[in-house]
Amino acid sequence: MFHENFREGVISAKQFKREDIEYLLKKSKEMLKTKNSNLLNGKILATLFFEPSTRTRLSFESAMYRLGGNVIGFHSSDVSSIKKGESIADTIRTVENYSDCIVMRHSLEGAARMASKFSQVPIINAGSGSGEHPTQGLLDLLTITEEFGSLDNLNIGLMGDLKYGRTVHSLSILLSNFDVNVYFISPIELKMRNRDKDYLRQQHMKYKEITDYRKILSTLDVLYMTRIQKERFIDLEEYEKVKGYYIFRKSDLDDTKDNFRLLHPLPRTTEISPDIDHYDKTIYFKQTYYGIPMRKAILAELMRD
Amino acid sequence: MFHENFREGVISAKQFKREDIEYLLKKSKEMLKTKNSNLLNGKILATLFFEPSTRTRLSFESAMYRLGGNVIGFHSSDVSSIKKGESIADTIRTVENYSDCIVMRHSLEGAARMASKFSQVPIINAGSGSGEHPTQGLLDLLTITEEFGSLDNLNIGLMGDLKYGRTVHSLSILLSNFDVNVYFISPIELKMRNRDKDYLRQQHMKYKEITDYRKILSTLDVLYMTRIQKERFIDLEEYEKVKGYYIFRKSDLDDTKDNFRLLHPLPRTTEISPDIDHYDKTIYFKQTYYGIPMRKAILAELMRD
Amino acid sequence: MFHENFREGVISAKQFKREDIEYLLKKSKEMLKTKNSNLLNGKILATLFFEPSTRTRLSFESAMYRLGGNVIGFHSSDVSSIKKGESIADTIRTVENYSDCIVMRHSLEGAARMASKFSQVPIINAGSGSGEHPTQGLLDLLTITEEFGSLDNLNIGLMGDLKYGRTVHSLSILLSNFDVNVYFISPIELKMRNRDKDYLRQQHMKYKEITDYRKILSTLDVLYMTRIQKERFIDLEEYEKVKGYYIFRKSDLDDTKDNFRLLHPLPRTTEISPDIDHYDKTIYFKQTYYGIPMRKAILAELMRD
Repeated sequence: MFHENFREGVISAKQFKREDIEYLLKKSKEMLKTKNSNLLNGKILATLFFEPSTRTRLSFESAMYRLGGNVIGFHSSDVSSIKKGESIADTIRTVENYSDCIVMRHSLEGAARMASKFSQVPIINAGSGSGEHPTQGLLDLLTITEEFGSLDNLNIGLMGDLKYGRTVHSLSILLSNFDVNVYFISPIELKMRNRDKDYLRQQHMKYKEITDYRKILSTLDVLYMTRIQKERFIDLEEYEKVKGYYIFRKSDLDDTKDNFRLLHPLPRTTEISPDIDHYDKTIYFKQTYYGIPMRKAILAELMRD
Repeated sequence: MFHENFREGVISAKQFKREDIEYLLKKSKEMLKTKNSNLLNGKILATLFFEPSTRTRLSFESAMYRLGGNVIGFHSSDVSSIKKGESIADTIRTVENYSDCIVMRHSLEGAARMASKFSQVPIINAGSGSGEHPTQGLLDLLTITEEFGSLDNLNIGLMGDLKYGRTVHSLSILLSNFDVNVYFISPIELKMRNRDKDYLRQQHMKYKEITDYRKILSTLDVLYMTRIQKERFIDLEEYEKVKGYYIFRKSDLDDTKDNFRLLHPLPRTTEISPDIDHYDKTIYFKQTYYGIPMRKAILAELMRD
Repeated sequence: MFHENFREGVISAKQFKREDIEYLLKKSKEMLKTKNSNLLNGKILATLFFEPSTRTRLSFESAMYRLGGNVIGFHSSDVSSIKKGESIADTIRTVENYSDCIVMRHSLEGAARMASKFSQVPIINAGSGSGEHPTQGLLDLLTITEEFGSLDNLNIGLMGDLKYGRTVHSLSILLSNFDVNVYFISPIELKMRNRDKDYLRQQHMKYKEITDYRKILSTLDVLYMTRIQKERFIDLEEYEKVKGYYIFRKSDLDDTKDNFRLLHPLPRTTEISPDIDHYDKTIYFKQTYYGIPMRKAILAELMRD
């Protein structure tokens, strides 16, 4: 089913309607039960990371190996033909001949969509500039549903860099298919962009924009924090103004509900104090664990015969 | 048969006589029929890329996986012991203990030959400076024969940087085993080197050197374009003089025969206008596709038990 | 047995008592007999190299493939989330969710030990700053026992950078479990550190510190040379003073016993003249060969079900 709707791959969270998401969540839960399989035996995944990554790349590679497949790729535009002046389109039209699916990260916002126009194998967007990171959003949903059983009726805060943060863009789009109450929490300078909010309003999402998370912290089921991403700022003075804006500490955790959960796509820098890592309420490392079953589910849908 | 003649690997196109080439073309065509096999199960290929590469490295890796083998390697001399001052000879005498075959790219012209002297496993030259790139030449021949049925009696133009272009060196050497008419088309500054022409004359190759491709374009069956390679110029002023020398456009394509084919080893920069990419006469992306069966054939010859 | 004692991995040579070492040597010898197996089918090894490496990384990867497993990883801190400011602890708590064992190299001396505190999968220390490199020491022991049958009663010289050289630290700790006579041969500036000597004295190791190897060369069974490591010096003037301090030549080799063996962990720069590489007494390339069975033995112990 998913396979039929998404022949060109996973480019944007907007491709996914509620039933698609629920299908993928169900498939991911199945993947959690079997560590290894031969589902993608003989298949090759290409991981093209024009921007650096640890988590996302290794997570896709691990998922592919767990399904019996193999991986080729590059991890830096320095070591590839890009250095010789090749266009993304040409790289894609080459690599599609070597692989059955391409996972791609690039600093330009429209890169994955553009790539999918040229590719005859499915493209997976593993981060396109400040735009989107849909598979991260999907694994975030898997994490939340594993903790809460369902998404509906949850109070969810998305906090940090909502302007440049591609993970919060994809996650909020996905959440707009469910009956959730969302708080967008950010410094004024890093508010969610109008074009993103326009889409969410069309989707009838219930959201509020606030600056001080302390006012609503005790009502939240989930707080999803993000890093202020230095690499997205053109003006470093702007970055210096906001970099330490939010720091979540033990005293904050004490103010939360019993079943409260703190998520973060990682990497983090200073925004979450490491001394709360061991509490049951902080699940950002568990969250990385859910990356494997979700990515296995996606890869299997896109490549299985 | 090939295996007997090439125990030390694939270093230069000069190793290949007509019957060797025809044998490899036949084997490649067989490889086209079976996407995956277990022929190289348990074998390990080492890909040592001292110079950056996308196409060649990923193509070899994909070919190796399609044959059931595994791959180790490095993609930049920055991340290897080279940085600590190790010689190529020492690197090879180490890596031969970890692998069954070594694919190697290096900026020095004699690097692969030197490596083969120290190695007890076969070495494949994946590009040695401005010298040669024999497996590219072999896949180029596969591409042409798949399009034309045979190589004999074709009019073939090789155009661009004939001085520093290692792919045209290997391709012209291979072509010298067949009954072809060759045009070497380049700016004066980038003409084929005398030592290369001396070899081709010994081989009784029929060739002409010209500057303006338009004069003979309508007679050509195949035009093989190459990039002017900025990284080979010591003097960037020299590069600036010739970089935009040839640009192949739609109007050129209109002047060609019905069965004309335009090839390019890629990456390209500005020398072929992207607006002709979708025509049947332009087959540079199809050409990358033929890299897989040819490299599968070579790897199988060098490593199978 | 080994498995029971080393659940957290291979961090330091100090973990190994004589019976552990003998067990691993026995297992390595078994591994020498079967090139490939399926012992680690479905397992994933993560190779996290924050510092550059050819030998150690490729050796672990080759060993893992020979056992039927797969490999993920990064080879430079440039291409990973480290660049975004992530801590080692966070990287480890992420990657443990993607893999069954982590091999790690880092420029900080305590890095591997720290990582093992956070990890739920075994950590293998593949070099921690100037500290240790225990698997190198283990393969060095395998090399010596393969040549001499046993370790006891040998005269062994460790020469070069004994202050910053992590391989000599691990090797001397391992040797302290056997009845050997050790000479520490170095410039005054690069003598073995006091804390290391304190440990060896506690272990009742018989050692002498000397500067001129020529005085005892004719009595040695084994000379283990190391590179003066430029990258460990903060003051390059200090490096310049000692860099060419020892150069082992043909005339030295002539002064050695018939069964003398010269080892080196490689890479070498100028400290061993390449014109003696082909003598039976120089076995540094054979030594790299023994890296595979020893690492296969270690990986199998840490990951097999």
